Amino acid sequence: MNVGFIGLGLMGRPMALHLARAGHALHLWARRQASFEPFADVDATLHASPAEVAKQADIVFTMVADAPDVEQICFGPGGLAEGARAGLIVADMSTIAPAAARDIGARLAQRGIGFLDAPVSGGEKGAIEATLTIMVGGNDEPFARIRPLFEVMGKSVTHIGASGAGQVAKACNQILTGVTVAAVAEALNFARKSGVDAAKVREALLGGSAYSRILEFHGSRMLAGNFAPGFKAWMHQKDLRIVMEEAHRLGLALPNSAATAQLLNAMVGSGMGEEDSVAVYKLLERLSG
Amino acid sequence: MNVGFIGLGLMGRPMALHLARAGHALHLWARRQASFEPFADVDATLHASPAEVAKQADIVFTMVADAPDVEQICFGPGGLAEGARAGLIVADMSTIAPAAARDIGARLAQRGIGFLDAPVSGGEKGAIEATLTIMVGGNDEPFARIRPLFEVMGKSVTHIGASGAGQVAKACNQILTGVTVAAVAEALNFARKSGVDAAKVREALLGGSAYSRILEFHGSRMLAGNFAPGFKAWMHQKDLRIVMEEAHRLGLALPNSAATAQLLNAMVGSGMGEEDSVAVYKLLERLSG
Repeated sequence: MNVGFIGLGLMGRPMALHLARAGHALHLWARRQASFEPFADVDATLHASPAEVAKQADIVFTMVADAPDVEQICFGPGGLAEGARAGLIVADMSTIAPAAARDIGARLAQRGIGFLDAPVSGGEKGAIEATLTIMVGGNDEPFARIRPLFEVMGKSVTHIGASGAGQVAKACNQILTGVTVAAVAEALNFARKSGVDAAKVREALLGGSAYSRILEFHGSRMLAGNFAPGFKAWMHQKDLRIVMEEAHRLGLALPNSAATAQLLNAMVGSGMGEEDSVAVYKLLERLSG
Repeated sequence: MNVGFIGLGLMGRPMALHLARAGHALHLWARRQASFEPFADVDATLHASPAEVAKQADIVFTMVADAPDVEQICFGPGGLAEGARAGLIVADMSTIAPAAARDIGARLAQRGIGFLDAPVSGGEKGAIEATLTIMVGGNDEPFARIRPLFEVMGKSVTHIGASGAGQVAKACNQILTGVTVAAVAEALNFARKSGVDAAKVREALLGGSAYSRILEFHGSRMLAGNFAPGFKAWMHQKDLRIVMEEAHRLGLALPNSAATAQLLNAMVGSGMGEEDSVAVYKLLERLSG
């Protein structure tokens, strides 16, 4: 299949390479020339604009930072909408607000372009190992067509519901991971400040109902002082901004998500934005001397 | 061994019965006569006071609601301290404040009585099935002596550290379980209010880094509207009060624990105290119409 891919960063690059290795012809566009280098040895064509990509592709994946980037790629000058043939499908795998995804989907539909919101969890490691969890919103027909390509990039692909539902599921994922990371940091700091061996506490709690993947895999990183990303704090901050904006729009009380969003604000404000979000442990440690 | 057990409620009763079935002679005291009925068929002697229990026993377990109950049993009129022989060990399996446990341990030590704080997690089910997680604080020597009895009641027994360390570990457990229950409730309400199938979202997230035992076992209860205890909200409220008091004493910022403590206050205030703490889902649902 002719597959467009726009957004060749830490996540997008390995995802696109998996598609090429699965036998698809890649059509690429990127702002920076350096982004093309990893594609020298695969069937990949570089284009001058998203519109040129859209002319060649049956499906275009986008993997960028936030909603304005997706909008620019779709509707900006030289955007996908300018070059799209009828029947093109755009699958946005970025994490953006559910309302923005629904809006972009509706505007593309007016031009006969299909749209899926298909954000992922699993991070750079999941992208490299093709073990991503992919949560999809949109109509059945484009989902059925694109599913085999999603399965090249991830190990768990779920059609959650209508347009925007993939982003809602991703937002739920970011609530759970963000709040659980903060809860683990609070508990381990509590142990440490009480003069107790936090590693022993973590070990004892892993066997019971307090078990979470975060406690198992990130709890030990906190205690080892390993705050290298992984998943950067400024990205988690952005994702919880989306959650809190949706909560405001829906009239929804999310007290723990709000507390965690404040901690992420404080992390970015105190220079930890480029560290992994597990550095919230360090923030809480500093807060309490 | 001659084993005293005081506190024959939902947790204490099955725990004491396991000790009897393991061949130990039980020495019991309780406020209510009805508490003795389950012990009619085992080797159990009823006594008129904790002091009488202490005269007969090598080790006395206590399993009551809060620190004042433990203090009354130890130091009140007819308390354990009145009847204790030198070398008696008291193991308090209740959940109380770490500072209170350290204080009780120090006061018992002045009278030559050993003390372990040994709170548990796993709930009534864990008590009945002898699969409790037992977190122990105190000296090595009494721990070594009592460990075989703990292993009759639980499947995971960890000596966390010095006096009070068991209660610190339990407090960490209550932070993690309380905050994670609230986070799961927030995420599932977010999905539902966004018009998305929350069960599908839960299913998709179980495979990734958002996985927790709470999401797996309690997330489905929330969606089914099953709020029967389990672990009652007023007890989790009490445990987070202990956490917040310790945080105040230590000068420790615990923003998510604080948000969850407020939700538990609201649950008890709105008549959900006797329901399971997963009913926080219902509270959040009501809050947002």
